[in-house]
Amino acid sequence: MSPEEFRRYGKQVVDWIADYLSTIESYPVGARTRPGEVRAALPAHPPEQGEPYEKVLEDVSRVIMPGITHWQHPSFFAFFPSNASGPAILGDLLSSGLGVQGLVWAASPASTELETVVVDWLAELLGLPARFRTDSTGGGVIQDSASSSALVALLAALHRTSGGEIRAGGITRRYTLYVSSQTHSALEKAARITGIGADNVRVVDVDPLTLAMDPGHLRSLVTEDIAAGAVPAMVCATVGTTSTTAIDPVAAIGPVCAEHGIWLHIDAAYAGVAAICPELRWINDGVAEYADSYATNPHKWLLTNFDCGVLWVADREAVTGALSIMPEFLRNQASDSGEVIDYRDWQVPLGRRFRALKLWSVIRWYGAEGLRQHLRTMVSLGDEFAALVSADPDFEVRPHHPFGLVCFRPLWTDEETMALLERLNDSGELYLSHTRVAGRVFLRMAIGAPSVTSDHIAKAWATIRRISRDMRPA
Amino acid sequence: MSPEEFRRYGKQVVDWIADYLSTIESYPVGARTRPGEVRAALPAHPPEQGEPYEKVLEDVSRVIMPGITHWQHPSFFAFFPSNASGPAILGDLLSSGLGVQGLVWAASPASTELETVVVDWLAELLGLPARFRTDSTGGGVIQDSASSSALVALLAALHRTSGGEIRAGGITRRYTLYVSSQTHSALEKAARITGIGADNVRVVDVDPLTLAMDPGHLRSLVTEDIAAGAVPAMVCATVGTTSTTAIDPVAAIGPVCAEHGIWLHIDAAYAGVAAICPELRWINDGVAEYADSYATNPHKWLLTNFDCGVLWVADREAVTGALSIMPEFLRNQASDSGEVIDYRDWQVPLGRRFRALKLWSVIRWYGAEGLRQHLRTMVSLGDEFAALVSADPDFEVRPHHPFGLVCFRPLWTDEETMALLERLNDSGELYLSHTRVAGRVFLRMAIGAPSVTSDHIAKAWATIRRISRDMRPA
Repeated sequence: MSPEEFRRYGKQVVDWIADYLSTIESYPVGARTRPGEVRAALPAHPPEQGEPYEKVLEDVSRVIMPGITHWQHPSFFAFFPSNASGPAILGDLLSSGLGVQGLVWAASPASTELETVVVDWLAELLGLPARFRTDSTGGGVIQDSASSSALVALLAALHRTSGGEIRAGGITRRYTLYVSSQTHSALEKAARITGIGADNVRVVDVDPLTLAMDPGHLRSLVTEDIAAGAVPAMVCATVGTTSTTAIDPVAAIGPVCAEHGIWLHIDAAYAGVAAICPELRWINDGVAEYADSYATNPHKWLLTNFDCGVLWVADREAVTGALSIMPEFLRNQASDSGEVIDYRDWQVPLGRRFRALKLWSVIRWYGAEGLRQHLRTMVSLGDEFAALVSADPDFEVRPHHPFGLVCFRPLWTDEETMALLERLNDSGELYLSHTRVAGRVFLRMAIGAPSVTSDHIAKAWATIRRISRDMRPA
Repeated sequence: MSPEEFRRYGKQVVDWIADYLSTIESYPVGARTRPGEVRAALPAHPPEQGEPYEKVLEDVSRVIMPGITHWQHPSFFAFFPSNASGPAILGDLLSSGLGVQGLVWAASPASTELETVVVDWLAELLGLPARFRTDSTGGGVIQDSASSSALVALLAALHRTSGGEIRAGGITRRYTLYVSSQTHSALEKAARITGIGADNVRVVDVDPLTLAMDPGHLRSLVTEDIAAGAVPAMVCATVGTTSTTAIDPVAAIGPVCAEHGIWLHIDAAYAGVAAICPELRWINDGVAEYADSYATNPHKWLLTNFDCGVLWVADREAVTGALSIMPEFLRNQASDSGEVIDYRDWQVPLGRRFRALKLWSVIRWYGAEGLRQHLRTMVSLGDEFAALVSADPDFEVRPHHPFGLVCFRPLWTDEETMALLERLNDSGELYLSHTRVAGRVFLRMAIGAPSVTSDHIAKAWATIRRISRDMRPA
């Protein structure tokens, strides 16, 4: 495709996306397709001859769109938001157009350096401690996800705990990882990937009301494990759990880690960005004093399209100690000088996209004030929704919803609640997901799309009431 | 940013990229920036108020571009190609615009189903065996890189070898991984990440001329390790090594693996796509009979912008056994039914972009014939370059260059060759990288940009001759 063809088709695709975004509310939020339906509508064999790009666009509209659940729809409230925004898409497009690799600094220096700037900007916006800055002993790096951030943190923790022995010798003793029942499954996955094993993931009790990790129980598990000969490698505290956005007490967990030299990782995948608002900065109490690493995903709630998760560490040498290898074909003067960051040693893959462009675009387009306004609007819409549901005696709302997620349920059996969820999602009017708290099914209303307004919240509640009344008339 | 603002700015960005691609030859290929220069030119603090997108584009041109090494430049010959193309960029743009997550089938069914279609298409184009198709017991999945593909393959191998015990218990005995001295460093990285440890990566001898793995030595290492109580977990054979595109003899390695039940992974990151051309399909001799997994990266040599690496496995249950976890918030009827693929269980991260769109765009725009023509042109340009260098008595060319990579050196000391490399890259006229073969430094000329022609090859050789003559007059 020549540059001029790209210019022509590129503008068609931009129009296609602008049209999509301006008519997105005309689509049912959730796809109504059955397994295999999209596949069956596509040719079984690849084309022998090339086709004009118009055909691809036609098939996107005809075959792909009916199988799309619209994550950017203002009435998409499932999982956590994964919101794109105009400037993010444009930053990503620039990255695709430049097509550079930032595996080592020398491979395209601006890619690495812009990344160090934007992760330092974000650290400043969040009020993270100076040791997490790239101009200190630590630094930040863009990962594809909080799962990968947790994996890298655990690898760094194992490296430090083993005094680097694990690098050559592998896992030769029992290492333990501490989570709560509310911690994201990515931590168990990381324990399995690193060879620690799921049995050595120790599940700390939570407060039954707040669902926050119990530091006293953490202390007793750690003591017990050390007495049994295990080596505690890492504690993961969560700021804003996936299930209900519960917040683990980092300020009380930290001293347990400090006492035993255990790496403290903070998984703030969704909620961490809220600290851009000074009135929400309390969520990070204890982080400045105790955390070894901190992860939050601008691709969830900060208007930056996937993938853009940021991991900060206080000691970059633990990360590079765990992950660096220097094959001959990558040797270069800049790396040898030690003056530069080579981000391939901060992640699992070798290659890397120029993802800093999209985060930079977002921060510049919105500015700190624009980002704060977005987050505050979402929190306030969450409060609006919670107030609506609370006023209905047939529903229960979970307390503690400091962010954009509200968990609620009809006062029904779990089976009935799941049937309601299915009916709601089948309606096409909104899309929700669910969780289980103390054995009970709750529905999750996660608000984050930049286009969502009070009207969408009111409409969502009206739909929920209408469909629930249909299912169980008063 | 409203859809209408996006429409306007989007077209500006498309124009910016089209202009960039049509004037790319006016840039020096390699960045001439010093460490810290780009960072110093950017504001130390994030903006408090938003800025118009024009400002971002201005800064891309003013601050970022001088720090860019132009991987899409037709005279970029370093590392391996990492080529974008118009349809790939457009597919990626559609993915950003839709902004859907394909973590489980139910989250946006078309994302998973289009991926199954395109990886099956690619398997067909490459002539891979039926057991690698997603409509069999195995299947393909798009990963971010061959490093991640190797890691996932190793996790699957460990799962199978341990009878699933590793999942809960972790690494509790000595597992070994077999590579050659020419294998990519990603394999050692995977061994460290999985807790096997670098010391348990066994390095098999290579043929001194072809640099291909010696199956006899593999067999003796395996026998020795088993006798010493180790469990051989995986052999990685490479089709097209990073250093020189050497090809390990899969047909002779396979029987050793089969005899001992060892997982055989094929790392064909760069060269694998060449099998689209029937005359190059011999590179996969033995794959159909013996391979458990196969990885190749369309983002290297197949005109699809990073990231797009494809991993196929013959037994998907080994992969999902190693990586699946089902937290409550992801439970859904489709997953419970077992009728669908949930790709989050085939990779490290949970979230995933709709990357199938770009590979689909590429295959449709070029068609099988267009892709073959691209690959054949690159191979033929490699031959042209090798002929030019061979004709010069002051240079040596490595034999065996079946793809687009030619390794060569002036008949100088290694220090002088490295000095030549530096002078060449500083010239801005081309960009090369280097490797070391049997202790000697060779320069690597990797040809892959869709815009490269005979003229660029002739010009590159003229530059190399001119600068080498300047350094050592005859």
